[in-house]
Amino acid sequence: MRRVGLFWLGVLGLLGGCAGGARDASSPGFEVLSAEVAATAAALREQGLADGRAYQLVGSLTAEVGPRLAGTPGDRAAVAWALRTLDELGFDQVRAEPVTVPHWERGEAEGWIVGPDPQPVVLAALGGSVATPEGGLEAEVVGAASLEELEQLAPSAVEGRIAFIHDPMERTRDGSGYGRAVAKRHRGAAVAAGKGARAVLIRSAGTSTHRVAHTGSLRYADGVPPIPAAALSNLDADRLAARLADGGPVRFHLRLTSRHLGEAESANVLGEVPGRERPEEIVLLACHLDSWDLGTGAVDDGAGCAIVMAAARLIRDLPQPPRRSLRVVLYANEEFGLSGARAYAEAHREELARHLVAAESDFGAGPVWRFQTWIAPSAVPAAAEIARLLAPLGIEWGGNQGAFGADLTPLRPFRVPMVSLRQDGSRYFDVHHTADDTLDQVDPGELAQNVAAWAVFAYAAAEWPGDFRPAPEP
Amino acid sequence: MRRVGLFWLGVLGLLGGCAGGARDASSPGFEVLSAEVAATAAALREQGLADGRAYQLVGSLTAEVGPRLAGTPGDRAAVAWALRTLDELGFDQVRAEPVTVPHWERGEAEGWIVGPDPQPVVLAALGGSVATPEGGLEAEVVGAASLEELEQLAPSAVEGRIAFIHDPMERTRDGSGYGRAVAKRHRGAAVAAGKGARAVLIRSAGTSTHRVAHTGSLRYADGVPPIPAAALSNLDADRLAARLADGGPVRFHLRLTSRHLGEAESANVLGEVPGRERPEEIVLLACHLDSWDLGTGAVDDGAGCAIVMAAARLIRDLPQPPRRSLRVVLYANEEFGLSGARAYAEAHREELARHLVAAESDFGAGPVWRFQTWIAPSAVPAAAEIARLLAPLGIEWGGNQGAFGADLTPLRPFRVPMVSLRQDGSRYFDVHHTADDTLDQVDPGELAQNVAAWAVFAYAAAEWPGDFRPAPEP
Repeated sequence: MRRVGLFWLGVLGLLGGCAGGARDASSPGFEVLSAEVAATAAALREQGLADGRAYQLVGSLTAEVGPRLAGTPGDRAAVAWALRTLDELGFDQVRAEPVTVPHWERGEAEGWIVGPDPQPVVLAALGGSVATPEGGLEAEVVGAASLEELEQLAPSAVEGRIAFIHDPMERTRDGSGYGRAVAKRHRGAAVAAGKGARAVLIRSAGTSTHRVAHTGSLRYADGVPPIPAAALSNLDADRLAARLADGGPVRFHLRLTSRHLGEAESANVLGEVPGRERPEEIVLLACHLDSWDLGTGAVDDGAGCAIVMAAARLIRDLPQPPRRSLRVVLYANEEFGLSGARAYAEAHREELARHLVAAESDFGAGPVWRFQTWIAPSAVPAAAEIARLLAPLGIEWGGNQGAFGADLTPLRPFRVPMVSLRQDGSRYFDVHHTADDTLDQVDPGELAQNVAAWAVFAYAAAEWPGDFRPAPEP
Repeated sequence: MRRVGLFWLGVLGLLGGCAGGARDASSPGFEVLSAEVAATAAALREQGLADGRAYQLVGSLTAEVGPRLAGTPGDRAAVAWALRTLDELGFDQVRAEPVTVPHWERGEAEGWIVGPDPQPVVLAALGGSVATPEGGLEAEVVGAASLEELEQLAPSAVEGRIAFIHDPMERTRDGSGYGRAVAKRHRGAAVAAGKGARAVLIRSAGTSTHRVAHTGSLRYADGVPPIPAAALSNLDADRLAARLADGGPVRFHLRLTSRHLGEAESANVLGEVPGRERPEEIVLLACHLDSWDLGTGAVDDGAGCAIVMAAARLIRDLPQPPRRSLRVVLYANEEFGLSGARAYAEAHREELARHLVAAESDFGAGPVWRFQTWIAPSAVPAAAEIARLLAPLGIEWGGNQGAFGADLTPLRPFRVPMVSLRQDGSRYFDVHHTADDTLDQVDPGELAQNVAAWAVFAYAAAEWPGDFRPAPEP
């Protein structure tokens, strides 16, 4: 019966009045979810919707730890919190696996329009920025409506100036606006420095209408000097752009005291729910434990960790363990270079072939609206079955068109199958990477919907007798 | 006909088919709005609703000046802006009248929960606060759910500690929640210092759900030392209150570098629309030009100044000047002690008896929903007539139950009649006195509704042949 489509099995089941539960679920190739599994998944879904644990976990993490940028005392406190909490939740093999992370310190940031008409602005250093000279630097501003426009400017127009890239980010449900907006944050400093700029300013790569600046990492380039880089709040960026549009010269003062402090020790934190039949096979449920330093990391990614922890705990509480093992991984340092994800792939290389499927929750606390996959084509009917179990949560089946999680990137070359429980990101970038990333931005009901979805997916994936491996070629 | 009720005049007018316009409007006691005046007021109402000038004025003030706390360079720039702008708008007798103001400098502010579980918080020094010792101070926090609760604490519970008053502000349309919440800002430092506290923290006297702190002035008391005082953002205040609720000791670190820099020169800025018949009688249209320093003062009180300027300009553009004069006054330093309002009352003392009626716009940019007065009872029917002209704007008549404007307070003992065009304040305290007080918080349509209402009121009041004076006893 291997590789027989689920549709036909379903038809056969209906024709035969077969409950499915009578099937031999231990038969390795039997690619269907039994009626018992479907019923248990449905029960998990209801339990998840009523689950208050995830919200309690985000509250605990943000209150007891708060900001936890890689390498800082908050980062170490977060690792201790995660070990303690996974233990308390009853996970097996709770452990910290060492990860070396960079340690960058934000320091102070201030800036103002010098003239015409002096005005202070709200800004934040981009993650990894170098400092300005002590006392700051002052220069004329050259504006560019996009990174591409900056790339096309003559060096003579940029040299000795502060480059300012001010395209606004588009608000979208799927977060695609961020992908477009973030290029200037990643590459703006390198492009500006290549043309001789003394510093770069960007409009925040976010959608907030409040007076908060959006931080996030940048990448300097070899062969050009690292220059100070900061993001202005959207309001301040719009004001500066309006000043430039007036046509006359605009001067700006910027002072950053950011510092690189070398490397520090952090850790990935893991906990497991051992499988009853194939404990060596792993359903990987991921999030990242670190956060930016401006807020308390409630939505990025406290919510994601709370979701996967609460979902796995619901499965752990079942009368019978799932067929395969669940492994919850709270990655170190996603924000500042995926250190934890790389260390995991390295440390677990021998084991990656036994990763049945992996998924990461790292898009805030908004509701899941689509389930999509990147799995072996033969397994797609099983994913569609899981999607049917998710449908009562308002989740649509998005097909085998791809799945993503930043921390899963290092697993991609190993063709680990992946799943995305895609969340509504319409409001995510109002708070993401800003001081507004705090607990009050998390809606308990929406968070619980996530728990329900993750519990259904994780349980059904761990129980399904078939195989999602290997993922298509990257 | 003096003192004959407007109702009966209206009935007579209807019975006689009299258009009213035939009446001798120059007859001093003829207490009715002529049909021409009503028609012109209705036209002004429509022009006001289509008016984009007020929004342009707020944009200009916030972009070209921005923050303008009394005594600062921004304050001086604001006076220059106001003189230039009133001139450009064509007002008569544009002038600056000197006002001595205090000069306080915010400096830096930082604070964090030391333990258990260190966490930085977002806070702002209260206006007028003294600095902490260099390097900051650290102490255990004693919480109080209200100023009254702090007042009842034994000094032994407060001495040597940081007092923290954390009652939340209620959101209301009429702003009454602010009146209750602001007491802890005004008096918290004095009460805490009287019990030996080393510093005082308060939950922001505002309704923002974002990570911004709400500043505003405090009052120290004679006989107790001035202690450092700061407001936490509502989110941070709730977190600190939750920590205290855990029961164990909570320590806090606070550092403020605020300074008093003595006195500085500022000015009230005035402009007039001269009356055609009784130019010596004044309809006073007020706002305040200064702002707090965290935002750009768009809603507090850029909007108010823009509203009264745009409304008066509409009346100035009429083919015929109004019967009495309009006087627009942009007061200096409302925020930090009403310096401008006091100076005006002093400098214009001889003239106050010729102030027919006064009104101030200082409640943001939300729509006007009620018109109410504090005028001679005999004039109330005329006010009710004006209210009927305002009704198409969604404004109800609130009766002669009182009218308020902070800057009008010094006129009260002189029984200057007053009017309030009360605005919806439901969202005002989300941004008031915070970094979020910026242009994007102003809705152009709502602002224009204000201009329409003010133009109708100011014109009708200036034209009405009767007298609003004197206001009832204070």
